[in-house]
Amino acid sequence: MSRWKPDARGRLEKAALELFNHQGFDATTVAEIAARAEVTERTFYRHFVDKREVLFQPNALADVLAHATAAADTPAPLEVITHALTEAAPVFEERAELVRQRQAVIAANPELQERELTKQASLVSTLDRALRERGLDATTAALAAAIGIAAFKVAFERWIDDPDQRNLAQHIRETLDATRHLTAPAEHAAATDASFQDQENVA
Amino acid sequence: MSRWKPDARGRLEKAALELFNHQGFDATTVAEIAARAEVTERTFYRHFVDKREVLFQPNALADVLAHATAAADTPAPLEVITHALTEAAPVFEERAELVRQRQAVIAANPELQERELTKQASLVSTLDRALRERGLDATTAALAAAIGIAAFKVAFERWIDDPDQRNLAQHIRETLDATRHLTAPAEHAAATDASFQDQENVA
Repeated sequence: MSRWKPDARGRLEKAALELFNHQGFDATTVAEIAARAEVTERTFYRHFVDKREVLFQPNALADVLAHATAAADTPAPLEVITHALTEAAPVFEERAELVRQRQAVIAANPELQERELTKQASLVSTLDRALRERGLDATTAALAAAIGIAAFKVAFERWIDDPDQRNLAQHIRETLDATRHLTAPAEHAAATDASFQDQENVA
Repeated sequence: MSRWKPDARGRLEKAALELFNHQGFDATTVAEIAARAEVTERTFYRHFVDKREVLFQPNALADVLAHATAAADTPAPLEVITHALTEAAPVFEERAELVRQRQAVIAANPELQERELTKQASLVSTLDRALRERGLDATTAALAAAIGIAAFKVAFERWIDDPDQRNLAQHIRETLDATRHLTAPAEHAAATDASFQDQENVA
C-alpha cells in the first residue's frame, strides 16, 4: 500500500474472484480481498456493499436487452430475441476471463446459485415487458422471453466451455437456430414441406 | 383434539396454506398450524420437517417427467416434451385448489420464490437428463428441457388464472403449439412455405 495504483475497483474484483475460486466464497473475508488488491478495507466498501456484490454487480445487461428489444427491426419474436441477445453479448465478451471465473465461483455454491436464478428470472421479466411494449400478447411475450433467456443460458454455457473460443454472439445465433429444429414436428423438419411436395409430385 | 379425525396430513396442509395466505408465511407458527388442524405439534412434525416443507413437499413430478420422457413414442423433441408435461399435469390438477393457494403464498414471499426457482431448475435438469438418455445431443437436450419447463411455467400461470377453468393439459398443449409460431421466421410462419410456392406458381 506504499504507492497509489489505478483501478482499485478492477483490482478488487480480480482479487475477490481469485480468492473465491481458491479458498471458497464463504471462507473469504473482505480483509483478505482488500489485502490482495493492495487497498484498505475502507476502499473495498467504497466500491461494494459486501463481498457478494462483487459477483452481482449491477450491469448494463437489462438495459441493453430492453433497448435492443424495442429497436429490433423484425416482427418475428424469435428474431427480435436473437437481435436483443446478440446486442447484449459484448456485456460478457468484454470481460470473458472474469465472467468465467465468476461462473466457477457460482457453480460451487448453492446459495449463490439461488441468487443467480433470481437474477435470471428478473431478466425474463425485463424481456417479457419489452416484448409486450412491442405489442405482443401476454402469453406470446412470456413464452418468448422465457425461451430467449433459456436459450441464452445454453449459449452462455457453450461459450464458457468452448475450446475453439468462438464468440458468444455466434453461440447465441446457433442456439436460437437450434430452437427452430427443436420445435419442428418431425425429426428432419426443415425439409418436411419440401419432401412432402416432392412425394406428391412423384405420385 | 377430543376425537381422532382422519387425514391429519391433509388437514395440516390445508390449515397451513390458509394461515400462510391470511397472515403471511413468516408470521405463521407450527403451533398455529397444528391448532387449526386440530392436531398436536408433534403430529405436525411426524409429517413435515418444518413449515416450509408444507410448500415444498416431495412430489411425483420429477419421476413422472422422467418416465414419460423415456416412454414418448416420437422422435421430435417438442412432442416428447409435450407428452411428458401433459402426463405430469394430473400431479397439479388433482389438487388444483391447494396448488392455487400455494402459488399465492409463494408469490407474496421473495425467499420462497428463490426456493421455487431452484426447484424449477432441478426439473430442467431432470428433463435434460431424460432427453439425453433418449439419445439427444447435449445442446439440444439442454435447450429442449429449458424450453419445456419455460413453456410449462407459462401454461401453469394461464391455468391458475383461467376464468374458464380449462384443464392444465390443454394449456400445456396450447403453449407448446405457440412455441412453433414463435420460432417461425416470419409473422404468419405456418403458411410461409405454401405462400412462397403460390407466388412462384402465379409468377
